Amino acid sequence: MHTYIILFQCKDKPGIVAKLSDFILKNQGNIIIADQYSTSLKNGHFFMRVEFDVDGKAQGMTTLGKGLSLIAKVFNAKASLYEKDKPLRMGICVSQPQHCLAEILYLWRTGELNVDIPFVISNFKNHKQFIEEQGVPFYFIPATKKDRREKELLKLAIDKTDFLVLSRYMLILSNKFLKAYNKDIINIHHGFLPSFKGGNPYAQALKKGVKVIGATSHFVNESLDEGPIITQSVESVSHKDELADLIRKGKTLEKRSLVDAIRAYIDYRIIRHNNTTIVF
Amino acid sequence: MHTYIILFQCKDKPGIVAKLSDFILKNQGNIIIADQYSTSLKNGHFFMRVEFDVDGKAQGMTTLGKGLSLIAKVFNAKASLYEKDKPLRMGICVSQPQHCLAEILYLWRTGELNVDIPFVISNFKNHKQFIEEQGVPFYFIPATKKDRREKELLKLAIDKTDFLVLSRYMLILSNKFLKAYNKDIINIHHGFLPSFKGGNPYAQALKKGVKVIGATSHFVNESLDEGPIITQSVESVSHKDELADLIRKGKTLEKRSLVDAIRAYIDYRIIRHNNTTIVF
Amino acid sequence: MHTYIILFQCKDKPGIVAKLSDFILKNQGNIIIADQYSTSLKNGHFFMRVEFDVDGKAQGMTTLGKGLSLIAKVFNAKASLYEKDKPLRMGICVSQPQHCLAEILYLWRTGELNVDIPFVISNFKNHKQFIEEQGVPFYFIPATKKDRREKELLKLAIDKTDFLVLSRYMLILSNKFLKAYNKDIINIHHGFLPSFKGGNPYAQALKKGVKVIGATSHFVNESLDEGPIITQSVESVSHKDELADLIRKGKTLEKRSLVDAIRAYIDYRIIRHNNTTIVF
Amino acid sequence: MHTYIILFQCKDKPGIVAKLSDFILKNQGNIIIADQYSTSLKNGHFFMRVEFDVDGKAQGMTTLGKGLSLIAKVFNAKASLYEKDKPLRMGICVSQPQHCLAEILYLWRTGELNVDIPFVISNFKNHKQFIEEQGVPFYFIPATKKDRREKELLKLAIDKTDFLVLSRYMLILSNKFLKAYNKDIINIHHGFLPSFKGGNPYAQALKKGVKVIGATSHFVNESLDEGPIITQSVESVSHKDELADLIRKGKTLEKRSLVDAIRAYIDYRIIRHNNTTIVF
Repeated sequence: MHTYIILFQCKDKPGIVAKLSDFILKNQGNIIIADQYSTSLKNGHFFMRVEFDVDGKAQGMTTLGKGLSLIAKVFNAKASLYEKDKPLRMGICVSQPQHCLAEILYLWRTGELNVDIPFVISNFKNHKQFIEEQGVPFYFIPATKKDRREKELLKLAIDKTDFLVLSRYMLILSNKFLKAYNKDIINIHHGFLPSFKGGNPYAQALKKGVKVIGATSHFVNESLDEGPIITQSVESVSHKDELADLIRKGKTLEKRSLVDAIRAYIDYRIIRHNNTTIVF
Repeated sequence: MHTYIILFQCKDKPGIVAKLSDFILKNQGNIIIADQYSTSLKNGHFFMRVEFDVDGKAQGMTTLGKGLSLIAKVFNAKASLYEKDKPLRMGICVSQPQHCLAEILYLWRTGELNVDIPFVISNFKNHKQFIEEQGVPFYFIPATKKDRREKELLKLAIDKTDFLVLSRYMLILSNKFLKAYNKDIINIHHGFLPSFKGGNPYAQALKKGVKVIGATSHFVNESLDEGPIITQSVESVSHKDELADLIRKGKTLEKRSLVDAIRAYIDYRIIRHNNTTIVF
Repeated sequence: MHTYIILFQCKDKPGIVAKLSDFILKNQGNIIIADQYSTSLKNGHFFMRVEFDVDGKAQGMTTLGKGLSLIAKVFNAKASLYEKDKPLRMGICVSQPQHCLAEILYLWRTGELNVDIPFVISNFKNHKQFIEEQGVPFYFIPATKKDRREKELLKLAIDKTDFLVLSRYMLILSNKFLKAYNKDIINIHHGFLPSFKGGNPYAQALKKGVKVIGATSHFVNESLDEGPIITQSVESVSHKDELADLIRKGKTLEKRSLVDAIRAYIDYRIIRHNNTTIVF
Repeated sequence: MHTYIILFQCKDKPGIVAKLSDFILKNQGNIIIADQYSTSLKNGHFFMRVEFDVDGKAQGMTTLGKGLSLIAKVFNAKASLYEKDKPLRMGICVSQPQHCLAEILYLWRTGELNVDIPFVISNFKNHKQFIEEQGVPFYFIPATKKDRREKELLKLAIDKTDFLVLSRYMLILSNKFLKAYNKDIINIHHGFLPSFKGGNPYAQALKKGVKVIGATSHFVNESLDEGPIITQSVESVSHKDELADLIRKGKTLEKRSLVDAIRAYIDYRIIRHNNTTIVF
């Protein structure tokens, strides 16, 4: 058995589900999970994720892909086909804070995160031993705000990765880099966006006296901390929580929010639409 | 435009989604939301909820219903067709505690709960004025553990209701009643099932020293507090919370859990399967 | 038995707890709950709430108040003494949305909110019957953005209330009003502050594509939606939640956040400090 | 500066706070945090935790301890004095599941969990390398249900540890062991107690169709999964969550619940009372 996933989005119109499910049936597929959603507005938008099994001897990626393209053309849709169990290649960028990185690597090492990790890149040397112990190549690129050394990052990322994760990476990636890389980049922001953008969000939260803190995973776009939100995690805090407590509690939120976002991404459960996400 | 909902369950098999979506298309329907789920076990089970619009001049309930029956036969399925905006008739039974009842009536009165309420029945007289002020018929049936007076309840319920809500009703309904009524009954249990069944769950929770309390909405079956769970709400508590605090916090949980369950029920988002629920 | 509460804040210094507890002991008091907290910064700040029983025949408010003043002078502290069971007089201002108001009145009517409610004021006439049915005086003051008619509000509030609750009141109170009234005003903002200040926060949240929404209760100060936060409630949302769903879910959050804030206030569990709150 | 913590419990009586705070003052201490709580029942019980700074040149543990004993005698109280920054020695027992262990070791290694870890003991050999890499002694004791080899465990634990953590340890410790060890043992149960005691709690939860799962940290006593609860963590689940999902989500809950419990324990924020806990 092979398992495939289709993500499909277009202007809403009658008959899309019928067409897609008929296509799957005709290719000897059996639908496991189908999630569909249309915005209720006039001229609504249609979104669908279908996961289906196909007997191994039946049609493969190429044939299925061709068939899907034809349907996409009919509906003027954006459609993608993925093989469920083929791991994506996830590059990781990290600055000083190690907690998210350690969580990701632990889950990867124990088989709970089905990705390949071609490298970890950091502007801090100190992760070297920890990362190499786990058999992951480590690149120390001493980037700074003045010299972000994005060419080196790009060179490594462009061929070796399907997407990038900024696991508390403190340098802002330039629009030039984003265009050149042209694949998805997931960031974890240690604050409850859209509150507390930019630096030191926990210090901002403390000063403001909020009673709930949060962490936000989002796709990176050209505006700092403005990309489409994927997941948000929150936790109550009180006056007893000083800065160190917020940071400590925040680490748990960041790990959770980032891991949930990566999981949704590698399970092909995310569709980007305008500046928001559909997360099935 | 009319909006219809189909609930469909059967042994999993290829082609069900294709058949259903084709059926909708052929009846000039446009799918708004489709949720489908199959258990991954061998000989898995298939569950689907489809919500679709049909132009008012096109096929009505009768024709659609006949067509659906034919499909159901093919797959040996349990299938139901509902009109989205036609309010269900919800009978309410209540004993002394009024908070859930008041919440339900408030939401109903302000148009946020699309049901008809043919009556409220209680073994406590004190709700009479409060209920009648809202224009709802009130029946005082002084049932007791020894004489549950279920015949009177049945007589009122059987013709006038599509389902019953036990909004903190303290009397256990007999199997005989359940069989005679033969429609769904939703109960709110003021504890986190399966912990703390039966009486005084907050006192049980206090004695046990739990750090989280809960409330559970479930369908009533022949075993006390054992029916399929629909929703559960939880909240943290601490040593400072004495019995009165647990009861007070619990009221918020009960209201929320019960209202969420009713909403899921009247939106036809619940499929019962064995002793569990699929809540889309 | 009489129960009293002391709130006490000053620059931190050794001996404050000893002094206060000795004072209570010498007045035949028995401490029920003592919560104390000092900020850990250099020149930290000290906050304390003590709840204690005194035999009815022993010292009353006047004597206790005088004694407390002497201690406050020693530590250059801000100290207050309250009788636990004496209900505060809570004036309510409301615009069109009725859900918070209805929740407050229900809890008040059933004895779960120990306040007196001298009046409800609204710039919408439609609440009149609902409020008067409950035996609460209703004043229709057709205020608008251009003519806020604050004099009328002030006239009613100044003598008859100990604090005001803005239960979804859409008009901004002027600094002039705040100074003249000079007592606490609690507002519910239907958004997760500091995100989404001002109007239509749920529409803002929808557009931003957040995955968690919130409601915030805070004291009113001269800056719109910037006063000290008392409570925040949050709930997960998904792409399926359209504006109407956010508003509906938000109502539950608003009711909860506002009721929790009122409860904390009337239990004398809040100390204001700079632009934040200590909520014991 | 030295920071000390007092935990104090006895039958409630006027004057205890006064006595304790006076004692601290007379020893040149400055109270940082004082939390006090009395049960409201007749013949209530008094609980207090005080954290205070004392100048390094002033009284040390011995003098303070003697003074505290005298006060404890007066009130017939159970009193303890601790030095805040002196790490406790925490022995760890683990069976096959490694996630809690890994989380604890990561936090310990990065300085976020202020304990000494004299050893990790397991009836599974596979942890050896992972643990020894981190510089922690590892003992493989191939205990089984028939031969629990508790003597070896006891021998290691009795002198080298202040408390034990069962980080998903599948063997039940005998009453004989508990009596001989006679110190606190913290267990993580992968279910929401008191529901789902014993084995395979997630399978139990799945079968029951619950909508919220949980994990529970508790002190071990002579009854399986019946000891005083310290922390509980919960998360929503749906029909889409199969056993593997519950186990995966549960791991996050278990890590969180256990780490929170350890933190509360080593911060001396827990007082045991009957079969419950006061967690300040």
